[in-house]
Amino acid sequence: MGAGRGMAADMGEQPAVLAALAGRRESVLAELRAALPAEPAGVVLVARGSSDYAAVFGRYVLETAVRRPVALAAPSLQTLYGVEPDLRGWLAVGVSQSGRTPEIVTVLERLAHAGACPVAFTNDPESPLAAVARAEIPLGAGDERAVPATKTFTSELVAFALLAEALGPVPWTGADVDGLAPAVAELLEDSGRVEGAVARLGAAEEMVCLARGYLLCVALEAALKLREAARVRAEGWSAADFRHGPITVAAADLPVLAFSAEGPAAADVDELAERLASDGGTVLRASDRPGADLSLPPAVPEPLMAVAAAVRAQQLALSLARHRGLDPDAPAGLAKVTPTR
Amino acid sequence: MGAGRGMAADMGEQPAVLAALAGRRESVLAELRAALPAEPAGVVLVARGSSDYAAVFGRYVLETAVRRPVALAAPSLQTLYGVEPDLRGWLAVGVSQSGRTPEIVTVLERLAHAGACPVAFTNDPESPLAAVARAEIPLGAGDERAVPATKTFTSELVAFALLAEALGPVPWTGADVDGLAPAVAELLEDSGRVEGAVARLGAAEEMVCLARGYLLCVALEAALKLREAARVRAEGWSAADFRHGPITVAAADLPVLAFSAEGPAAADVDELAERLASDGGTVLRASDRPGADLSLPPAVPEPLMAVAAAVRAQQLALSLARHRGLDPDAPAGLAKVTPTR
Repeated sequence: MGAGRGMAADMGEQPAVLAALAGRRESVLAELRAALPAEPAGVVLVARGSSDYAAVFGRYVLETAVRRPVALAAPSLQTLYGVEPDLRGWLAVGVSQSGRTPEIVTVLERLAHAGACPVAFTNDPESPLAAVARAEIPLGAGDERAVPATKTFTSELVAFALLAEALGPVPWTGADVDGLAPAVAELLEDSGRVEGAVARLGAAEEMVCLARGYLLCVALEAALKLREAARVRAEGWSAADFRHGPITVAAADLPVLAFSAEGPAAADVDELAERLASDGGTVLRASDRPGADLSLPPAVPEPLMAVAAAVRAQQLALSLARHRGLDPDAPAGLAKVTPTR
Repeated sequence: MGAGRGMAADMGEQPAVLAALAGRRESVLAELRAALPAEPAGVVLVARGSSDYAAVFGRYVLETAVRRPVALAAPSLQTLYGVEPDLRGWLAVGVSQSGRTPEIVTVLERLAHAGACPVAFTNDPESPLAAVARAEIPLGAGDERAVPATKTFTSELVAFALLAEALGPVPWTGADVDGLAPAVAELLEDSGRVEGAVARLGAAEEMVCLARGYLLCVALEAALKLREAARVRAEGWSAADFRHGPITVAAADLPVLAFSAEGPAAADVDELAERLASDGGTVLRASDRPGADLSLPPAVPEPLMAVAAAVRAQQLALSLARHRGLDPDAPAGLAKVTPTR
């Protein structure tokens, strides 16, 4: 198999996976609404790695719907320190592509034992994680051929969107969810712009990915994909946090990839991107506005734009890897299921 | 003022600041217990930058004491998206050195308006943040001379420890808190080992800082200090997360600084550190066990060891900066109070 053929194939399945998820929307919402507490006292998410960044998205959309802060579990408190929380009335969401990451299963089990209503997002309805859960959103993304997860990530974003919709008011409609598959299909066919962006990056070995609000998860995920596939030392930052310190390290030779979409967070990201560009930096913009280096589709509500923006990040990582003669499908040192205590 | 004299002076005040905080322990606990709900429904922390990493420590110690997951606020939900949460029965903790970071003040105010009991940690009892709070832990750290915050960070760790103690059972005693000041004083006098560690780093431009559990916050903070003071592109990672992906980027020329202390998380960090070292990497260990490159004091309970480990990180960052002819006191591009929307 040629360099990145597996990753390209995984990415190419996203329109079908997203369409299938959108098609299951009504039945998933009905199942969730039947199984979950109507007004959760709180929500805690259990995830690691790429799923951890999907959980950052989950934090924003669930907090919008549930109107309570959403916590990311610190697994070591359960697995190493034996803390026994009281989670009656809470919702606990376990996210694992395989449904077999032992730590995620163990922590979801402990949180359920502590009184939380357990929900699972996984590719495998027969997995131990699904067995622990009272309600499940099957991602239906199938196995990833390449090590850098792509379709799993975007399907997890949609799963969080559906869970949020089941729990309270959200700023998008079913039609918006239906629109994701065709929008992503269109992006995948438009690879010319990606080549242009890769050319602008030159031989850069480091990068910074920036966003804010609903798209913050994409900045984090983009950095992870750039590391995994193209071995770039990329980091994802909230534009707000980036201003607080690390900006001092952002020399003119440190390229920036900034994500923004029509909505309340755009002005903040765009201002920072413009400042960095006017200081002489290489700034790539992934945006739904004119002049973007990586275009994003029009008329997608800001939260759901995370799905399209993640696809742009995947394209950039894959293209950059190929351009540098790397095979993103099987980077050294990475295993798919990593047991942690 | 010579390179880093301000940062060295700030660091040198830590024993006095920690002793003063320990001395106020009883009265702070009494004030907190009078003002706070006995069993908070949940806890949400509001912080940015260096205080954000202190909040990671807060998450672990508060979750241990309160037995509920602790969330870090996503400020943009309040400041950009206008989400109106329902936080009756919750505790909201705002952390800001100056007490004047507009975003932190605004978010704490909104969370209080939503029903949460607001608590503030700040250096300035006259600040707007303190005015919003129903209970306050004065850090008493005074102004920082240098831009990289040092005494503020360690005093914030102790403030979180005191808040946890006010809310439930914790694995340390008042005597342990009293012991921090002399332990830190001893570390500050022992700079020989730090020079040895700096020598082993050579001309490295990138680094990875690793830890797990209660010390995770120190890995994150160490990376921030190394960036701010010594302009090293350092990153902090949980040892568990690091195994999931970025390890592929850890070439033999990427030095690692691993923090561990006697307790349940040590084996995990030590195993990873040994593996990286046996692969030929430069691995510095900050630990309370024999053979550490940067020794940590004996007989400090694992959670409170974060204070001592943070001081070791400060020493390394300062020493590395001086060795490279940089002035850590005023790195370009950093401002102390950064307004964000």
